[in-house]
Amino acid sequence: MMITVYELDGIDSVRFSPFCWRTLLALKHKGLHDFERVPVSFRDRSPITFSGQERIPVLIDGDHWVNDSWHIACYLEDAYPDGPTLFGSDMGRSQALFINAWTQRIQNPGLISIILWDTFQAVNQADRDWWREDREKKFGRIEEYKSNQAEKIAAWHQELEPLRVTLRSQPFLGGQTPAYVDYLVFGTFLFARFVGREDVIEADGSVRDWYNLLLDMFDGFARQAPTA
Amino acid sequence: MMITVYELDGIDSVRFSPFCWRTLLALKHKGLHDFERVPVSFRDRSPITFSGQERIPVLIDGDHWVNDSWHIACYLEDAYPDGPTLFGSDMGRSQALFINAWTQRIQNPGLISIILWDTFQAVNQADRDWWREDREKKFGRIEEYKSNQAEKIAAWHQELEPLRVTLRSQPFLGGQTPAYVDYLVFGTFLFARFVGREDVIEADGSVRDWYNLLLDMFDGFARQAPTA
Repeated sequence: MMITVYELDGIDSVRFSPFCWRTLLALKHKGLHDFERVPVSFRDRSPITFSGQERIPVLIDGDHWVNDSWHIACYLEDAYPDGPTLFGSDMGRSQALFINAWTQRIQNPGLISIILWDTFQAVNQADRDWWREDREKKFGRIEEYKSNQAEKIAAWHQELEPLRVTLRSQPFLGGQTPAYVDYLVFGTFLFARFVGREDVIEADGSVRDWYNLLLDMFDGFARQAPTA
Repeated sequence: MMITVYELDGIDSVRFSPFCWRTLLALKHKGLHDFERVPVSFRDRSPITFSGQERIPVLIDGDHWVNDSWHIACYLEDAYPDGPTLFGSDMGRSQALFINAWTQRIQNPGLISIILWDTFQAVNQADRDWWREDREKKFGRIEEYKSNQAEKIAAWHQELEPLRVTLRSQPFLGGQTPAYVDYLVFGTFLFARFVGREDVIEADGSVRDWYNLLLDMFDGFARQAPTA
């Protein structure tokens, strides 16, 4: 049965949404390689009208659809119990919610404070007015985000200390092999990568080693934007 | 077989070490209620000379001993597989290491910056010279920690946001029932409680609800210091 993922589209078909990456990597983890990636523009969400909401990613599996990257991961874990587990157990799933919250409240906002301006450059020209207006409601003027890069990167690296420490003890957050929590956290690093700011990721050490391992997974799937 | 836990002793037999609490609650979780708590003073670690190191807690189970709260939890999970699980799965254990690191690098240091002076007041008189010298090597003059309480508490609460968000979705970090990660994080709140600074825990909301649930567990075991 064909699976379809609706994901946000950037300039030159680059896909930088961390939430969409989580979903794509969860599919790969489950061994579900046969899916179609449908680009959706920031300003025009009409392709997902069927879902009655505007948030992306949305996954369609046969006659069923799910939105929200967390709910999609839970759906895949439950619908495909024979594939490699994303959570390990119900307790693992509950614990993953903490790491999800850490990403959402700490890791992702810290990165956005650094790359908001760069993200604007990665938005399609036709979407930029929409994007600026939408983001400035929440973050204020995006030009402000170009400054104080070194200080913000240092503060962000400080916040990543629990990640750095954990990855000194084991190659993945999931242990010897990746779990959904790895894709959660990695998705935010891919966001940096695909807006051209891979430089904000520390150049060596446990976080970079883990990042490189994940880039290599699934035949280097996360290394590239999809070809159009 | 008798289990013995060596734990740090404070004034009036109060036990405030967050690491010791993790171990005590892990034992309770496993249904191992028949253990002896042996107080060890800060300045005199001779009761644990047998372990060839000075860090506490140390657990003795029959002819086997383990130190370090994380290793003790792993030991209990492996040695008592028939008791309720602490981690849910190997993947859950690996994920717990992230929450362990978050506690160690974020939650605990943030609290210490608030309560270091109060902690000194909870140390036995005979241990205070030792304790001051030991802690001031790392933290500087402990009197400095009395100031800026409101700012430090606000900053610490901000850092606890992932915990707050997670506990809005489920009663425990482990889901519907506690996991070892709950005791990890709760242990640090007990540290605040037993040095007389329960006021630093927010008065209502998801974190306080969870804290109260854990205080009630095991017949209110964590509510009180052991009777001498």
